[in-house]
Amino acid sequence: MNKRIREILGWYSSDNPGTLTNLARLLNHGYLSGTGRLVILPVDQGFEHGPARSFAVNLPAYHPHYHFELAIEARCNGYAAPLGFIEAGAVDFAGQIPLILKLNNHDVLHDEKDPLSAVTGSVRDALRLGCVAVGFTIYPGSANCTAMYQQFREIAAEAKASGLVAVCWSYPRGSDLTKEGETAIDVVAYAAQIAAQLGAHLIKVKLPSAHIELPEAKKVYEKTKVPIGTLVDRIRHVVQSAFDGRRIVIFSGGAAKEDDNAVLEEIRAVRDGGGFGTIIGRNSFQRRRSDAIDLLTRIMKIYAGEMQ
Amino acid sequence: MNKRIREILGWYSSDNPGTLTNLARLLNHGYLSGTGRLVILPVDQGFEHGPARSFAVNLPAYHPHYHFELAIEARCNGYAAPLGFIEAGAVDFAGQIPLILKLNNHDVLHDEKDPLSAVTGSVRDALRLGCVAVGFTIYPGSANCTAMYQQFREIAAEAKASGLVAVCWSYPRGSDLTKEGETAIDVVAYAAQIAAQLGAHLIKVKLPSAHIELPEAKKVYEKTKVPIGTLVDRIRHVVQSAFDGRRIVIFSGGAAKEDDNAVLEEIRAVRDGGGFGTIIGRNSFQRRRSDAIDLLTRIMKIYAGEMQ
Amino acid sequence: MNKRIREILGWYSSDNPGTLTNLARLLNHGYLSGTGRLVILPVDQGFEHGPARSFAVNLPAYHPHYHFELAIEARCNGYAAPLGFIEAGAVDFAGQIPLILKLNNHDVLHDEKDPLSAVTGSVRDALRLGCVAVGFTIYPGSANCTAMYQQFREIAAEAKASGLVAVCWSYPRGSDLTKEGETAIDVVAYAAQIAAQLGAHLIKVKLPSAHIELPEAKKVYEKTKVPIGTLVDRIRHVVQSAFDGRRIVIFSGGAAKEDDNAVLEEIRAVRDGGGFGTIIGRNSFQRRRSDAIDLLTRIMKIYAGEMQ
Amino acid sequence: MNKRIREILGWYSSDNPGTLTNLARLLNHGYLSGTGRLVILPVDQGFEHGPARSFAVNLPAYHPHYHFELAIEARCNGYAAPLGFIEAGAVDFAGQIPLILKLNNHDVLHDEKDPLSAVTGSVRDALRLGCVAVGFTIYPGSANCTAMYQQFREIAAEAKASGLVAVCWSYPRGSDLTKEGETAIDVVAYAAQIAAQLGAHLIKVKLPSAHIELPEAKKVYEKTKVPIGTLVDRIRHVVQSAFDGRRIVIFSGGAAKEDDNAVLEEIRAVRDGGGFGTIIGRNSFQRRRSDAIDLLTRIMKIYAGEMQ
Amino acid sequence: MNKRIREILGWYSSDNPGTLTNLARLLNHGYLSGTGRLVILPVDQGFEHGPARSFAVNLPAYHPHYHFELAIEARCNGYAAPLGFIEAGAVDFAGQIPLILKLNNHDVLHDEKDPLSAVTGSVRDALRLGCVAVGFTIYPGSANCTAMYQQFREIAAEAKASGLVAVCWSYPRGSDLTKEGETAIDVVAYAAQIAAQLGAHLIKVKLPSAHIELPEAKKVYEKTKVPIGTLVDRIRHVVQSAFDGRRIVIFSGGAAKEDDNAVLEEIRAVRDGGGFGTIIGRNSFQRRRSDAIDLLTRIMKIYAGEMQ
Repeated sequence: MNKRIREILGWYSSDNPGTLTNLARLLNHGYLSGTGRLVILPVDQGFEHGPARSFAVNLPAYHPHYHFELAIEARCNGYAAPLGFIEAGAVDFAGQIPLILKLNNHDVLHDEKDPLSAVTGSVRDALRLGCVAVGFTIYPGSANCTAMYQQFREIAAEAKASGLVAVCWSYPRGSDLTKEGETAIDVVAYAAQIAAQLGAHLIKVKLPSAHIELPEAKKVYEKTKVPIGTLVDRIRHVVQSAFDGRRIVIFSGGAAKEDDNAVLEEIRAVRDGGGFGTIIGRNSFQRRRSDAIDLLTRIMKIYAGEMQ
Repeated sequence: MNKRIREILGWYSSDNPGTLTNLARLLNHGYLSGTGRLVILPVDQGFEHGPARSFAVNLPAYHPHYHFELAIEARCNGYAAPLGFIEAGAVDFAGQIPLILKLNNHDVLHDEKDPLSAVTGSVRDALRLGCVAVGFTIYPGSANCTAMYQQFREIAAEAKASGLVAVCWSYPRGSDLTKEGETAIDVVAYAAQIAAQLGAHLIKVKLPSAHIELPEAKKVYEKTKVPIGTLVDRIRHVVQSAFDGRRIVIFSGGAAKEDDNAVLEEIRAVRDGGGFGTIIGRNSFQRRRSDAIDLLTRIMKIYAGEMQ
Repeated sequence: MNKRIREILGWYSSDNPGTLTNLARLLNHGYLSGTGRLVILPVDQGFEHGPARSFAVNLPAYHPHYHFELAIEARCNGYAAPLGFIEAGAVDFAGQIPLILKLNNHDVLHDEKDPLSAVTGSVRDALRLGCVAVGFTIYPGSANCTAMYQQFREIAAEAKASGLVAVCWSYPRGSDLTKEGETAIDVVAYAAQIAAQLGAHLIKVKLPSAHIELPEAKKVYEKTKVPIGTLVDRIRHVVQSAFDGRRIVIFSGGAAKEDDNAVLEEIRAVRDGGGFGTIIGRNSFQRRRSDAIDLLTRIMKIYAGEMQ
Repeated sequence: MNKRIREILGWYSSDNPGTLTNLARLLNHGYLSGTGRLVILPVDQGFEHGPARSFAVNLPAYHPHYHFELAIEARCNGYAAPLGFIEAGAVDFAGQIPLILKLNNHDVLHDEKDPLSAVTGSVRDALRLGCVAVGFTIYPGSANCTAMYQQFREIAAEAKASGLVAVCWSYPRGSDLTKEGETAIDVVAYAAQIAAQLGAHLIKVKLPSAHIELPEAKKVYEKTKVPIGTLVDRIRHVVQSAFDGRRIVIFSGGAAKEDDNAVLEEIRAVRDGGGFGTIIGRNSFQRRRSDAIDLLTRIMKIYAGEMQ
Repeated sequence: MNKRIREILGWYSSDNPGTLTNLARLLNHGYLSGTGRLVILPVDQGFEHGPARSFAVNLPAYHPHYHFELAIEARCNGYAAPLGFIEAGAVDFAGQIPLILKLNNHDVLHDEKDPLSAVTGSVRDALRLGCVAVGFTIYPGSANCTAMYQQFREIAAEAKASGLVAVCWSYPRGSDLTKEGETAIDVVAYAAQIAAQLGAHLIKVKLPSAHIELPEAKKVYEKTKVPIGTLVDRIRHVVQSAFDGRRIVIFSGGAAKEDDNAVLEEIRAVRDGGGFGTIIGRNSFQRRRSDAIDLLTRIMKIYAGEMQ
């Protein structure tokens, strides 16, 4: 195992060999194997936004095998999806790509200001389906945050005891936050800290804006002059907020964009700010297969330092 | 086993031999054995609507054996009912018809905008009563959807571990939806996707209308020109929304109709759109026995391709 | 065992020998042994209405042994009471009368429109106290009905696995029902159906009036001309609604009446309508002991066909 | 064992030898050993009212050993307290006084109209601490009564299975009751009945007033002329309401009184009405130690029939 | 073991040798070893207030190892933190400092008048991470107090059975209390009593003000002339309120202060009032490392009696 991966595994010294093995599997797979960077394909939008909004633009994406193939062919580090999608291909693609079973989901047929996702899978499901990790979304700022933190804690404890990796999607949202506040730098940094304190191995957050939401935080940012002017600054600050960079923090690819350059610009900022990678769904499976592979390859080249 | 059934079982490669055996039992029983199509008799209306509204029009239907006999005589693939009805005949008709134990129910003595059915049976009940499957209703769009998704997930996990098939009735309903929206094409397709992602083997939805309910979805339907003009189009779209046709989706027979042709017209659309069959309650047991068998036979002939 | 009892046990063919044995004990005890009819003494009014309203009119009834003695001396089929009353006599009268442990109770110090009784005993209590059955009240129509159906289901499942009989008091009540609606014929018939579908062996309902509560039901009653003009008609309809008479349905004795003839009139209607018997509390223990025994004997003679 | 104690134990014939042994330990300890009467020292006011309100008037009472010593020296039948106080002396005074572990508590930093005490100890705690009994408070009349009845039932079931005695503090309180109604004779008698039906071995209630709270009860009290004119009458009625005197009912000592005679007057009424004793907290530990022992001795002499 | 530590352990005579061993480890570690006084470093502010508000003023504090090192170098008795922070260093600093795993946490992205912290760790986590104790926050006065008391009780019971120490942060807060009331002398003393009655081994409260919040308490304080004029008086009263000094009560270091003397002044009051020590977070890790060690050393000298 190379030095960088050994260094990263060293941050997780309380974990058992099973979990470290699965974390190494994720870090040592695909194009970015051994670089300490990750690009993961997530496909839960069928549940979260509905099938037509997710797949109508690229009809082959209705098929559950499509996404396994896309992640494998593009040489991503892993593929993350809800129970149904994973069950529909786990045997067919066994051993070809590290899998992350997404354990909670939410739909928009019933929406609410303070969301609480349904728990739709279990650590036992992840084990029987050969996954390396479980994923779970928390919504800090939601009136239901206590329930979600506790659900994540129990799942993370069971995952750790079972030798799996625990991935936390930490997405601030709720009636106490403004829309702008959901991606405010102080709020995203706080969300990363909460996920780290809850014991997540791998943390996914959104790209932070320069807005500061909480008045008490604003005073401190101003007084201590935390640099947040550029996206690179903000990425660095979020990574710092997750145990000074000793937890793997990856960033979302965001809403579908027609312009590849806009996507790549963000990737460079993540790289330069010390982010560990990207989880990119709509900007990959909503493109034609060859375009998606092309874009994903360019992203990975940026992370690998093979392209500016 | 014939090729079509083998193909269908292949979609469920994550399932254990027990579940595949019971799924094969359902597919290989009755008139439609081996065709990959299903006609199932469901009788939970005594609980859901009350006994008089269900059975007064055809007095023999008060007797629990009546429905076993009807399903057997008409050569349906299976018979689905709540605990009491199944207990009242499981020994008497043991081995004569695949049984689906309906595990949750709702009544109209107390009704609400955001329904939550009571869990009225268990996987253990299904096992002790010799059933091949359990059935469960979720109401996407209900403020109680999280509770129902989680109940279904736990039941489906236990069913899969016990070698049973998990059937999901996915019926959008709730205070966020209009009445028209409950059968809107985008909503029905979404409901099929949710059930599939939750891990259902067999999904039952209502026949979709051409209405589109959700504004965000409407944009996509229009932009990508999803064909939804005819019932055949819409059936095809719903089947596509359940993992591109790799989950068995069947359609409800709907409210009692006096006109057989209206029923048969819908059956043809399901067949032509690639639907896997029909679950037909009120239009069977609320007819006189011979009329019901006659209608069910004609339906099965349509599915079998023996009749236009 | 005589033919009628064998016939009745035949309706419960999914049950294990333990449950059938205890059901036979209930049917083969006392004056009505072997007739297929039942008269049961229930005494939960101390909890439900308070001790003075229940017992002040007949002071010996404060003593828990009084009711055991009354049921034994009058030769009832069984005696039903909450935990405290059963514990206070189970050893003293062991083996002299089949006991039904009432597992939930409600009091009027706190009352509400949508009641939810407290679970005050368990199947294990019933087993350690030598009972043949457990009893449980559900309130269809209550906003809390889902909780109660689920509690009953779990208790019934445990009772069946433990070889006990599950008795369901099915009393419609709640904010969606009018006061008159609680005993409306459509509502009482519906309540009997729900209890049967939930898997109850023995169902207790109130005497139905000719009122029809639910508009959707009213249409059907009128269209199909269900005979509900006399109490005998209505009893027959309720019995029919419980699986065409294949579940034992018994009727409450109602509020205390001074006139014995009013009580006996109702008993004849139950008998003639095919009801299986009566559960009669206040009209027995609120009379002087000899009067109560006299009335109970006359009731049983009517059921036995020894008296008009 | 003397005859009276054997008689009392005979009322609990459904209980196992372990529970009867511990009940005998309570009845056969201290000054009143063998009389069938009980005086118990309860000290939960530190939790229920706060430490200063409880102990500032008598500083040594802040010390947890003080109450053990007081109960031992005064020769009470037992000492009842929450987890912390019992843990703080159980070893130091092991075997010197029967202990009752109070398993739920409530404080006034947050108060509410419909209280629900927190469960602050378990039957296992009582076993590891060498207690003979567990105590639990229910508030009949509270909107939370169902939760409390169920908690008590589970605790009582576990206590009985573990050979412990279950003591129920039954204190009517809640938004449906007037302040006066909390001690109304009909309400206190009802509270005693509920505790008895829930399976309590020993029941504690407040001294009842002549007020009648519930209109339905009032009719019965007037019609049947229940004697409630004197405190002796009312004590007798409450004892009758707990299974005609076959459950041990003890009465609270009430708020702190400066006048000893007022306390003793109530004790005589309890004795003459057939009450089984007194649980006396603030009127003992809020007096100077010697005064408290003096008062407790006089109380016990009254119960023992050694003093008018 | 010296006499003072033996004396303190003697107060916990109901505990098992495992718990006493871990309590001794805490008391016998660091500068204050054997004095019966404690200074503990707690770092949960990253979760409770957010990372920037906690660490931006002293950048090295973002790193989880920083706090282990600070506590070790300053020779504190122990270090307390949430799951993530402890996991991130438990192996690296194994055996160098007694650890307290903080088992519940709250953040300010969603805040409420009646807080309920999320349970973010377990006793099993504490065991696998080599901790000597678990910590838990209750908010007496919150409408959610019942839930928190019950959570603490279950955690404390499991900790005691597992040989760990149970530490309770008892912080009055909630819609029934004024802001001033949160630190009122009667309220803080009450909070200490509640924690002691719940079975806490070690209790942390805030420094009390001379304000009295509850009218019923005010009467008693005035009548009995409880001395509360100076902070020393108030510390003494709070310690008295925790079983007359037989439970270890430590005080918070409070908000960050620029003036060391203000901090030291409070430490002297705690010492002179008989308090057992201080838990000091923001006033240590928000100073530069050398300044923090300097301040902590001075604090410990005061407690050790080596400095006025």
